[in-house]
Amino acid sequence: MKNKEAKTKYPIHPNLKKRWSPRAFDEKPVEKDKIRRLFEALRWTPSSYNQQPWRLIIGFKGDETYTLIMDALSSRNQSWAINAPVLIAVFGRKFQNNSEDNNKVYQFDVGQSMAYLTVQAMEENLYVHQMAGIKPEKMVENFEVPVQYKPLTAAAIGYIGDPEILPENMYDSEIAERTRFDFDEIIFSGKFGRKSSLFEK
Amino acid sequence: MKNKEAKTKYPIHPNLKKRWSPRAFDEKPVEKDKIRRLFEALRWTPSSYNQQPWRLIIGFKGDETYTLIMDALSSRNQSWAINAPVLIAVFGRKFQNNSEDNNKVYQFDVGQSMAYLTVQAMEENLYVHQMAGIKPEKMVENFEVPVQYKPLTAAAIGYIGDPEILPENMYDSEIAERTRFDFDEIIFSGKFGRKSSLFEK
Repeated sequence: MKNKEAKTKYPIHPNLKKRWSPRAFDEKPVEKDKIRRLFEALRWTPSSYNQQPWRLIIGFKGDETYTLIMDALSSRNQSWAINAPVLIAVFGRKFQNNSEDNNKVYQFDVGQSMAYLTVQAMEENLYVHQMAGIKPEKMVENFEVPVQYKPLTAAAIGYIGDPEILPENMYDSEIAERTRFDFDEIIFSGKFGRKSSLFEK
Repeated sequence: MKNKEAKTKYPIHPNLKKRWSPRAFDEKPVEKDKIRRLFEALRWTPSSYNQQPWRLIIGFKGDETYTLIMDALSSRNQSWAINAPVLIAVFGRKFQNNSEDNNKVYQFDVGQSMAYLTVQAMEENLYVHQMAGIKPEKMVENFEVPVQYKPLTAAAIGYIGDPEILPENMYDSEIAERTRFDFDEIIFSGKFGRKSSLFEK
């Protein structure tokens, strides 16, 4: 969908330009080899002291894991995620490996790992929609998650589907243009909030 | 450096395969247009409710911002980062926009944004070395950071340099092969810790 391509001022990698987070997924199953490549990409994410705090549980539509992940999504996310052929639950290791010292950047690093998975997904013509809306206690209960790990997010993965399958309120955001803050609102120099001369008009 | 390419079992996007985090940077300055494209890539990162919690301060070697970022790095990171032509400090907005409700995934989303920046960097033949080792109080003091924002990490950006410029302990890791956990240690099914059949040997 042309309308969803990022309206960039400067050219960027085509995978990043076309990436977005649909709610309408096609029912077509995702090839296992593609999923393996997604996780291979994720595996090589950088992390503080190479701690690799990312842990993932994957479910395919029709299997028990899928049902258990679905059960632990917010009800709003359940309403559209049910279309996706693949669901993953995303966890982070709170501590440094082999220690009870906190890893201060574990959520930051798990976020990175999902970005790498998403970049590889675009390469495979697959789309990823990540969700902060999960029920963490349900995740812990359904999957017997040890205390060292924290449920963080979930994600739906699949081929893009027809927006018409969505209810009206979701349909509108599905076809809306993507928007972002201007550079001056996020890139600073000298002092927090002071715009950088890099982006002077 | 061939030795630093990820030894993948499944093929992945070349930018992800060749990405790594050097400490030896070339003194060659980075073109401003390349930096603009890095931030353009970062800007289009997905985030929960499109909150875009990422904020960045950029310094170029020789300017005051660079010195202020350098001052807020851990001393170990200072020892090698001084070679990099560009330094950025990375902050996250703790709350939802226009509210004092916490954003539970802001660190996760800022992590994603740095991954997108890094993917674009590889496209530009630039390398990024992220650092968790910062002095957060120094960041707050040096840049007058408002309470809604938290200093998270920093990053060095530049062209790759000669490992010989590094002290011996850092030289060794600079030329070492990259390693990661096996799939069975991070990708589960059915229950946390139970390996997925996706990766059966």
